[in-house]
Amino acid sequence: MIGGVCVKQSLGARTLAFPTPTWMVGTYDPEGRPNIMTAAWGGICCSRPPCVYVSLRKATYTHGNIMHRQAYTVNISSELHVVEADYCGIASGQEMNKWKQCGFTPVKSSIVDAPYIDEVPLVLECTVRNIVELGLHTQFVGEIMDVKADSSVLSHDKQPDITKVKPVIFEPSNRRYYGIGVFLGPAFSIGRELQSK
Amino acid sequence: MIGGVCVKQSLGARTLAFPTPTWMVGTYDPEGRPNIMTAAWGGICCSRPPCVYVSLRKATYTHGNIMHRQAYTVNISSELHVVEADYCGIASGQEMNKWKQCGFTPVKSSIVDAPYIDEVPLVLECTVRNIVELGLHTQFVGEIMDVKADSSVLSHDKQPDITKVKPVIFEPSNRRYYGIGVFLGPAFSIGRELQSK
Repeated sequence: MIGGVCVKQSLGARTLAFPTPTWMVGTYDPEGRPNIMTAAWGGICCSRPPCVYVSLRKATYTHGNIMHRQAYTVNISSELHVVEADYCGIASGQEMNKWKQCGFTPVKSSIVDAPYIDEVPLVLECTVRNIVELGLHTQFVGEIMDVKADSSVLSHDKQPDITKVKPVIFEPSNRRYYGIGVFLGPAFSIGRELQSK
Repeated sequence: MIGGVCVKQSLGARTLAFPTPTWMVGTYDPEGRPNIMTAAWGGICCSRPPCVYVSLRKATYTHGNIMHRQAYTVNISSELHVVEADYCGIASGQEMNKWKQCGFTPVKSSIVDAPYIDEVPLVLECTVRNIVELGLHTQFVGEIMDVKADSSVLSHDKQPDITKVKPVIFEPSNRRYYGIGVFLGPAFSIGRELQSK
């Protein structure tokens, strides 16, 4: 505190932001073999058309698969599969059959040229719309063609419920995984009190 | 279950992914007035150079500000400010002084042409690197020039600690805010047990 004002410390030019996801990306390789890779650089980037992206290094097997197939699935890792999600970020699909090691079942999407993970409760099926070369990472913007969910994670009005999906959150600073926490309030609602202040 | 396999329900082409952030974007307008807007479509998209993005509708005041100034800050909303973050997603900077309503103090960044929020514990200072028109939303990819943090949210080794920052997580399906939950395990570590399975 200097003169009542907090002085922030400079941490340098680094990728320190919260929350980041822990998504498992499903692809087919050129020979049609399914692969999984975990990515933390991802997010929703457009509402209409609905778009998501994942950013991947060129060195990854999945990068080549998406370039070849122009499609991928985003499988939202649940707390139940945090060990499997971590494994799919360590191992390479060129060397290992990650599906077998994880006990996961690939399901061929009927609308995009990619497999999703049957055991994961919430998946997004995407076709590539934009490829943006940013540096170490290539950003693959995908149009979401459909979202598929297990009925066990839907609320009574058929919406995916985050407290049932239990997504894994990645902390890039300390490289740790966290779960979802307590309900804080309804969006587009709790801020109204400040409008009339 | 059909033949022992879970059959997923189709929810349509929608932006349903977890987690999504609740970030407050700081900008200057053409006259130099600071503004804040809350965005849930954002994420890290490259490690080198370190890049983040926010996606904004053209109708927003912040969209015009970024086009004009080519810079913005990402202010990671903490649970402490969930009401303020929601308000900054409802009100327009053209009509309201959001800083005053929130009790927030704008601090002029010394390295990018944008203000950050003094009361928010973790901020990223960004200059625009890529602008991608996706449809309803424009994706502003920014290079992270510096990260600044209050010492109160740093761990003993000077890393931002997610349990101290307490980021707000947005659930787009049911439009609710959630906090961060329990520690699930160390990344690039807990998956190793599957390598030797």
